[in-house]
Amino acid sequence: MNRRISKKIFIGDVPVGGDSPITVQSMTKTDTRDVKSTVKQIMDLVKSGCEIIRCAVPDMEAAKALKDIKKLSPIPIVADIHFHHELALESLKSGVDCLRLNPGNIRDRTKVAAVVKEAKIRQTPIRIGVNFGSLPPVGGIGVSKGISRHNDGVNLLSKGLSDNEYSVVDHMVQTGLWEIGILEDLDFDLIKISLKAFDIDTTVESYRKMAKLVPYPFHLGITESGTAKSGSIRSSIGLGILLYEGIGDTIRVSLSDEPTEEIYTGFEILKSLDIRKEGAVLVACPSCGRADVDVRKLANDVDDLLKKTKTSIKVAVMGCEVNGPGEAKDADVGIAAGVGRAIIFRKGQKSKIVPESDMLTELMNEISKVEQEKNLPTS
Amino acid sequence: MNRRISKKIFIGDVPVGGDSPITVQSMTKTDTRDVKSTVKQIMDLVKSGCEIIRCAVPDMEAAKALKDIKKLSPIPIVADIHFHHELALESLKSGVDCLRLNPGNIRDRTKVAAVVKEAKIRQTPIRIGVNFGSLPPVGGIGVSKGISRHNDGVNLLSKGLSDNEYSVVDHMVQTGLWEIGILEDLDFDLIKISLKAFDIDTTVESYRKMAKLVPYPFHLGITESGTAKSGSIRSSIGLGILLYEGIGDTIRVSLSDEPTEEIYTGFEILKSLDIRKEGAVLVACPSCGRADVDVRKLANDVDDLLKKTKTSIKVAVMGCEVNGPGEAKDADVGIAAGVGRAIIFRKGQKSKIVPESDMLTELMNEISKVEQEKNLPTS
Repeated sequence: MNRRISKKIFIGDVPVGGDSPITVQSMTKTDTRDVKSTVKQIMDLVKSGCEIIRCAVPDMEAAKALKDIKKLSPIPIVADIHFHHELALESLKSGVDCLRLNPGNIRDRTKVAAVVKEAKIRQTPIRIGVNFGSLPPVGGIGVSKGISRHNDGVNLLSKGLSDNEYSVVDHMVQTGLWEIGILEDLDFDLIKISLKAFDIDTTVESYRKMAKLVPYPFHLGITESGTAKSGSIRSSIGLGILLYEGIGDTIRVSLSDEPTEEIYTGFEILKSLDIRKEGAVLVACPSCGRADVDVRKLANDVDDLLKKTKTSIKVAVMGCEVNGPGEAKDADVGIAAGVGRAIIFRKGQKSKIVPESDMLTELMNEISKVEQEKNLPTS
Repeated sequence: MNRRISKKIFIGDVPVGGDSPITVQSMTKTDTRDVKSTVKQIMDLVKSGCEIIRCAVPDMEAAKALKDIKKLSPIPIVADIHFHHELALESLKSGVDCLRLNPGNIRDRTKVAAVVKEAKIRQTPIRIGVNFGSLPPVGGIGVSKGISRHNDGVNLLSKGLSDNEYSVVDHMVQTGLWEIGILEDLDFDLIKISLKAFDIDTTVESYRKMAKLVPYPFHLGITESGTAKSGSIRSSIGLGILLYEGIGDTIRVSLSDEPTEEIYTGFEILKSLDIRKEGAVLVACPSCGRADVDVRKLANDVDDLLKKTKTSIKVAVMGCEVNGPGEAKDADVGIAAGVGRAIIFRKGQKSKIVPESDMLTELMNEISKVEQEKNLPTS
């Protein structure tokens, strides 16, 4: 996979874009005005690995509350603003590390200029968040211009596309270019972009198209993707397709669930694609009519126990003594359960045989040993 | 998306390949010799939508049990055979609809010929299941031949690739071609292929490569992908990438969980990509500091209630009265919750306002109405 080359920006001290690690972020679901609850949720998220957090700013009180939240948060804060430029200005005063703001939503250009001026002084980036659900009408508010400094000449509407040829994807991209152009006209380029839709095809094609047009880093996401189960599947596919082709610099999985679930899913997506390697990867056979033990229970127990591991380690839980060690020969450590006993193996080689009753404990001991070995300083 | 054109075969009465719907399958986790438990699990799977089921055949008793299972199963049965040709012969006698069998594992070619002869008489297809974990050694057992009727001349080893250039992907594909060649030499072409690995990159690249070489339908899967949570994420990405580019004719999600979970995940993958449209798709906002109601609970309640729906319907659960209806304007029906009340909307247009206490009931009523309208015969 060749990663798309994007401009590197900093959200607080976290780099996004360029060769920076692809980061995982979320959004608090608390009332931002409630500093205590919001900070508590941020701390839970940090424990799950969250690297950047966004907070809704519905009013002045929320914008002011960000000052205290910012003081207590160990990770950078993004202020989520809709429409009102004074909320953006107040959030900047509160010291936020990034604004999520579509300049096109603020009709008065002098107000946009005021926000950009303050952002520039603080070197605070702005994420433009184009969402399928809130696109301006085609041809409205100036979207038909759709020109950024970087795409001069690719204006899709100016190419004389008919309504039929001008797709939702074109409109997503065109809206993004128009928003970018507003910031570029004010000589501001600390820009991050998202182009989210519920539909995977629309999302993927919009990012693919934009990837060829501008150098700014991408925040990936699928909007309103659903519950922890259905939403994580939809997000995994959409984000997975893009990340597999090297597109994307930071991700947020939107789920109707606890924000820590969003972080878990985000990291699982990155680990599945070998993009982030921190933590354990579990290989677990689905079990079949040949298995003698409850592989499901064993796998879930091991999964739970491995959640806090930061070491990059591949662990296998297999239900078959005969095929297990070979099938999981690339695992650092694994267990293959037979009748009343289990084989613990490393890289496909038998390490020891243990009774079934001790298999979880013995496996966890072996994992600790491998972790220690991996964490030894290399001389 | 242009779907790869593959040869259509039939697993019982279920078409696989060509322009057939992409089917979702699973594998029983019961002891196949236990007919009662196995049939009960199959019936549960059928209720979840399972379209083809595979059963492990570890011994003669299991092969014979398939006869009774076959009589009671409403969906086609695939017998999963490793090594022993007599188990394949007995499974065919039991009337199974497909064999999963790698002919290369049966060293004696007269034994392979005996199985193929019986499969041909019954027009029973054979799935060749290449797995990363059980690849033959490079250059061993004849894999270096790697020639199928369809790829004559693309033999990778014969091209003089060095060991460094000959990748795991090459070896996966080459092994598949070798297995295919054994069946083709016996003039048998009711073939289905899988090329599974735990690693997404290996899996995706193997299928992509094979897609250009042979016309047979593909069974997609990621092996030992993990628990219901991590495994569904890994499988969604791997299968999603391939399906999005038109590769794949039937899928199995391998999870260390109940097989019904595999079916749920399989259909969610297909629905996310608009490949299968039966049933409900839930749009649900992740909620934020602006929401006044518990969107998570409402979304999960709606999700549960919609599980049995066969009608293709898009339902939205939004936490914001102001932005909700517009953001989910492509949903057939939706709810946007405000303070103490909620708006029910259809295609973004307000339908009615209901008190918060009744919102779930009122939404479900509206969904029923939409379902009825959708299911009216078009005149």
